[in-house]
Amino acid sequence: MADTAADSLSDFLASAVDAARKAGEIIRKGFYQTKHVEHKGQVDLVTETDKACEDLIFNHLKNLYPTHKFIGEETTAACGTTELTDEPTWIVDPLDGTTNFVHGFPFVCVSIGLTIGKVPTVGVVYNPIIDELFTGVHGKGAFLNGKPIKVSTQTDLISSLLATEAGTKRDKVTLDASTNRINSLLSKVRSLRMSGSCALNLCGIACGRLDVFYETGFGGPWDVAGGAVIVTEAGGVVFDPSGAEFDVTAQRVAASNPSLKDAFVEALRQTE
Amino acid sequence: MADTAADSLSDFLASAVDAARKAGEIIRKGFYQTKHVEHKGQVDLVTETDKACEDLIFNHLKNLYPTHKFIGEETTAACGTTELTDEPTWIVDPLDGTTNFVHGFPFVCVSIGLTIGKVPTVGVVYNPIIDELFTGVHGKGAFLNGKPIKVSTQTDLISSLLATEAGTKRDKVTLDASTNRINSLLSKVRSLRMSGSCALNLCGIACGRLDVFYETGFGGPWDVAGGAVIVTEAGGVVFDPSGAEFDVTAQRVAASNPSLKDAFVEALRQTE
Repeated sequence: MADTAADSLSDFLASAVDAARKAGEIIRKGFYQTKHVEHKGQVDLVTETDKACEDLIFNHLKNLYPTHKFIGEETTAACGTTELTDEPTWIVDPLDGTTNFVHGFPFVCVSIGLTIGKVPTVGVVYNPIIDELFTGVHGKGAFLNGKPIKVSTQTDLISSLLATEAGTKRDKVTLDASTNRINSLLSKVRSLRMSGSCALNLCGIACGRLDVFYETGFGGPWDVAGGAVIVTEAGGVVFDPSGAEFDVTAQRVAASNPSLKDAFVEALRQTE
Repeated sequence: MADTAADSLSDFLASAVDAARKAGEIIRKGFYQTKHVEHKGQVDLVTETDKACEDLIFNHLKNLYPTHKFIGEETTAACGTTELTDEPTWIVDPLDGTTNFVHGFPFVCVSIGLTIGKVPTVGVVYNPIIDELFTGVHGKGAFLNGKPIKVSTQTDLISSLLATEAGTKRDKVTLDASTNRINSLLSKVRSLRMSGSCALNLCGIACGRLDVFYETGFGGPWDVAGGAVIVTEAGGVVFDPSGAEFDVTAQRVAASNPSLKDAFVEALRQTE
């Protein structure tokens, strides 16, 4: 039974990688077109690319796993929130980093996560522009283009590279809270990166390029479901920025290696 | 005479590209080693890589152009400030993005600029990790891996992608000024990127990935001498964040396409 389960997980991973690579081709094509179309055309191109990738991924996976559930950014936007159940559920962001996509900034990706019993179990994050494929399967490790990856060995917050995002809300309360947090954290870390993709930030933690990451108020579970498995399988921890347990549906995430978690949660608490 | 000058510029460019690619090999090698050495070893590796790249580039260019002047980050750190004269002067940052280098974040580069009569005239910026070579020669256009590049066609600041950096100073006055500026600007642009390399930010403006960029308090002219030519040859403008004329020695830089400059300078002024 355990073997069968492991075999299934390998199958699920292979299927998700297939789907991500095919969607990646669509993204790559659109990425090099956006600069050549008018603004209205850019918006259409994002929508079309997003929709085409989600359709491709869902069709691919539904065909193979007709009993599984599916949650996607596009579908949710069209049909309202979808409740996460204990059933095997594919949670898909067909195009993470849409602002980067429009501007041609090379941090865009497909993110595919599979939860079983609400636990992120298989994760695939693929950046088709710089051809980096991050994968993780519960209990089987994390990989970048097939090579094992590990979180950083950094133990001092003051020497850590922090990632976060400016988000999309521009009301004064959100903006002030967000820049006050950055102000407070900048005195406690080495430096700050903002690269515009939540899923790729998680993968940055997984492969040790980044040491600590937090973001709140992002789009939905599709931004984190894939990356969360990859981080934990790379030896990292994914948690709520308050230090509480990570909830894939909460639109709140933090990640680091295990040594940095407590200091990071304390630093985040001091920004409140 | 004009032909001879143009021929010389082509030669200068070819020599700088050679030097940048050779230095890039050293950087690439070190980049994949940093995660495998202890902290003290990382610091040594940065210093050694920086020094080895600067020696290689200076030796390469001095051998070809023995009458030219040279300004480099490492040399300046060792020998104090070097005055920029009207003589042909190579201004070199052997490794821009040292924090990224240590952490394995893939935005690092070699930056080589040649000023003649204090005007940035030849620029080469090479990111050896994702193999992107940006070049520009006064009057001859700008290129990414041999293909012509142009600044973005964005005309609205509110739809623009802004880049800046957190810098290295962590005193309260600098931190407050820097995060207040970010707070004010975030309500006026689409989003913010911080990727840790001044030279690559300039190249991001040049190829239209980024719309507006400013940074103050960076290391020296080596951070901007190469990128400045590339921006202007891609149809962009490089200026002081106050709106005044760009001074390569001033440790203050801003860049955008021509349409965005006035609105961006005004937005920066409102942050003071």
